[in-house]
Amino acid sequence: MEQTPGIPAVDPRERLLRRAAEAKGMISFAGGLPDPGLFPNRRLSRAFLTALTESPAAALQYGWPEGSLALREHIARELAERGAEVEPARIIVTSGAQQAIQIAVSVMGARPRIGIEPESYPGALEIFRGARGKLVALEDEAELYYVMPSVSNPRGRSMSATDRRDLLERARRAGGYVIEDDAYEGTVFSGKSVPPLLASHPERVFHVGTFSKTLCPGLRIGWLVPPRKLAKITLKHKQAADLQANGLSQALLAEYLRTGHFSQLKRRARTHYRRKLQRLLRAVERELPGLRPNLPIGGFSLWLEGDSELDDARLLEAAVEQRVTFDVGQQFRAWPTKKLAFRLCFSAVAEADIEPGVARLARALKRLTR
Amino acid sequence: MEQTPGIPAVDPRERLLRRAAEAKGMISFAGGLPDPGLFPNRRLSRAFLTALTESPAAALQYGWPEGSLALREHIARELAERGAEVEPARIIVTSGAQQAIQIAVSVMGARPRIGIEPESYPGALEIFRGARGKLVALEDEAELYYVMPSVSNPRGRSMSATDRRDLLERARRAGGYVIEDDAYEGTVFSGKSVPPLLASHPERVFHVGTFSKTLCPGLRIGWLVPPRKLAKITLKHKQAADLQANGLSQALLAEYLRTGHFSQLKRRARTHYRRKLQRLLRAVERELPGLRPNLPIGGFSLWLEGDSELDDARLLEAAVEQRVTFDVGQQFRAWPTKKLAFRLCFSAVAEADIEPGVARLARALKRLTR
Repeated sequence: MEQTPGIPAVDPRERLLRRAAEAKGMISFAGGLPDPGLFPNRRLSRAFLTALTESPAAALQYGWPEGSLALREHIARELAERGAEVEPARIIVTSGAQQAIQIAVSVMGARPRIGIEPESYPGALEIFRGARGKLVALEDEAELYYVMPSVSNPRGRSMSATDRRDLLERARRAGGYVIEDDAYEGTVFSGKSVPPLLASHPERVFHVGTFSKTLCPGLRIGWLVPPRKLAKITLKHKQAADLQANGLSQALLAEYLRTGHFSQLKRRARTHYRRKLQRLLRAVERELPGLRPNLPIGGFSLWLEGDSELDDARLLEAAVEQRVTFDVGQQFRAWPTKKLAFRLCFSAVAEADIEPGVARLARALKRLTR
Repeated sequence: MEQTPGIPAVDPRERLLRRAAEAKGMISFAGGLPDPGLFPNRRLSRAFLTALTESPAAALQYGWPEGSLALREHIARELAERGAEVEPARIIVTSGAQQAIQIAVSVMGARPRIGIEPESYPGALEIFRGARGKLVALEDEAELYYVMPSVSNPRGRSMSATDRRDLLERARRAGGYVIEDDAYEGTVFSGKSVPPLLASHPERVFHVGTFSKTLCPGLRIGWLVPPRKLAKITLKHKQAADLQANGLSQALLAEYLRTGHFSQLKRRARTHYRRKLQRLLRAVERELPGLRPNLPIGGFSLWLEGDSELDDARLLEAAVEQRVTFDVGQQFRAWPTKKLAFRLCFSAVAEADIEPGVARLARALKRLTR
């Protein structure tokens, strides 16, 4: 029996965040949560009732591990619009993007060498640590690379065409693979995301997507497109993981997508989130002049960096005292540094709370650095 | 990159079963599927609408990895009635029992030594092979044991008190753990299942349960109770696997359970399944006199054994020609043997199809052994 190294059994930050989540009057910039005000509750209810009336078996009975054909066809169409031609038979519906990443990593076997950016999605870092992966820089040789080319987390930037080409070339030379995590693709403010890596090098790419950021996370529906020659083994890993994605969510989602409301919702959401970001940026410029904000092209959050060194736990504690929370820098970092950085999510916070929230944060920082 | 050994990338049986599933006029004893006629569609719809109206955030937004408190409290109450006192804080809501087993195995680290019965649940065998586990007999020393004490799969038997005590003693001596897969516990015909291993040795047991057999599989809701000292690391593994179980299903299920209809449904289902089993047993005695049926005390299926040797693929092919399918013996076996055995699921087949289905099967066997 091993206790997985690298995954702390007790995490004081998590304890603090949980307590904060339950506290009254707290303003939270933590999470990566979509705005629940955008959830199309009524349309989802209607889709549910239709699905349960018209195909109760699909919604409630066991299904095939690859998931609903209607969903996979929808995903194939969206990918084709972005230049990636994928037959629906190769798409696997997963229990969210998190599981898609987990499956791709598990297909690579134990202790893979994984190339990543210095800051990355914490959920992916947990998977890599759980698999006892050796983390190396994106520029190094690796068996597996993990990137978010359309909107990175936490920086909210897209990869340049040169960087994308170089990465794929590096993977090809090393006989390695790239996990392309496109979770935030649908949130690019301009509506125009970069072409997926899947479009140019499908034989090297595990493509990952999700409905969690554009529709709602409670459905737990994402997808994974494995390289063709790994398609069968990848499906075996999906089946071993949890047999199949949620049947109810799949049936409901297929019906919701059929109604054609989704692109309209995505357009509305992009405008909504951009407005919130602008408001956050103005507050940050005014209240936190010593920090460098990274202007995101999409996504749900703003990554801020400073020059001082600060212990994350102390920073979070001071912030919670001022009744504000956010995501500390350390959890995004593959290699520890004490350089001050943190992520503010503007997506789920009430618009009127943005300015007071940033003001509280400024007070907390002032107290610590005084 | 390794191709996981032991998980065949191409499975001719699966191809055949899939084709059979789509064929018209086929009678299927395959699966382990509950009877969709028992799904409480209307009550589930009502529960969904209530959940979405009263707590849309719980249903649609991200939630904590351990899952809904209301659900965990319900599970704790059901376990307490069976003699196992577990605080809800230690229960993890999982994406079905399959994921619960997968998580327990992943906590044990790579290549664990796993003690199992000669025939076992195929989904668990896939997980063990995926983890490159060394499979040994249940009587041997191991780091991890996997059993289904209340209703085994495929035999449909409970473990005797002596066998349960001996197993726990063996695990304790070896410093090992036991996965107690209680998936079929709610289907015991008498309504009285054996006390869970969790009740006597909670520090050695990963207890696994599910709503898939008693309510419906499409919800993908199961649970895992880890040993207390592994609780935190197990939750980390759950979070890495897919962040959380489906929020929509959890909210709907918590509301459905609140209405108190569930025990009534379980009672009705037990009578229903027992009647189907009786019908299958009579048909088998008449049509397949050369085979030994194992009288199950619950569950969805009947395990039949013969003395001849027969290739599973040939048997299944001959059966499909007669328009009947079932689960071949090989997929339940930890160690290959050609001894004839197969599993007939009576749960989801239409009652009127039971006799003709068995007659078709008898014809297929006659053709092969003639």
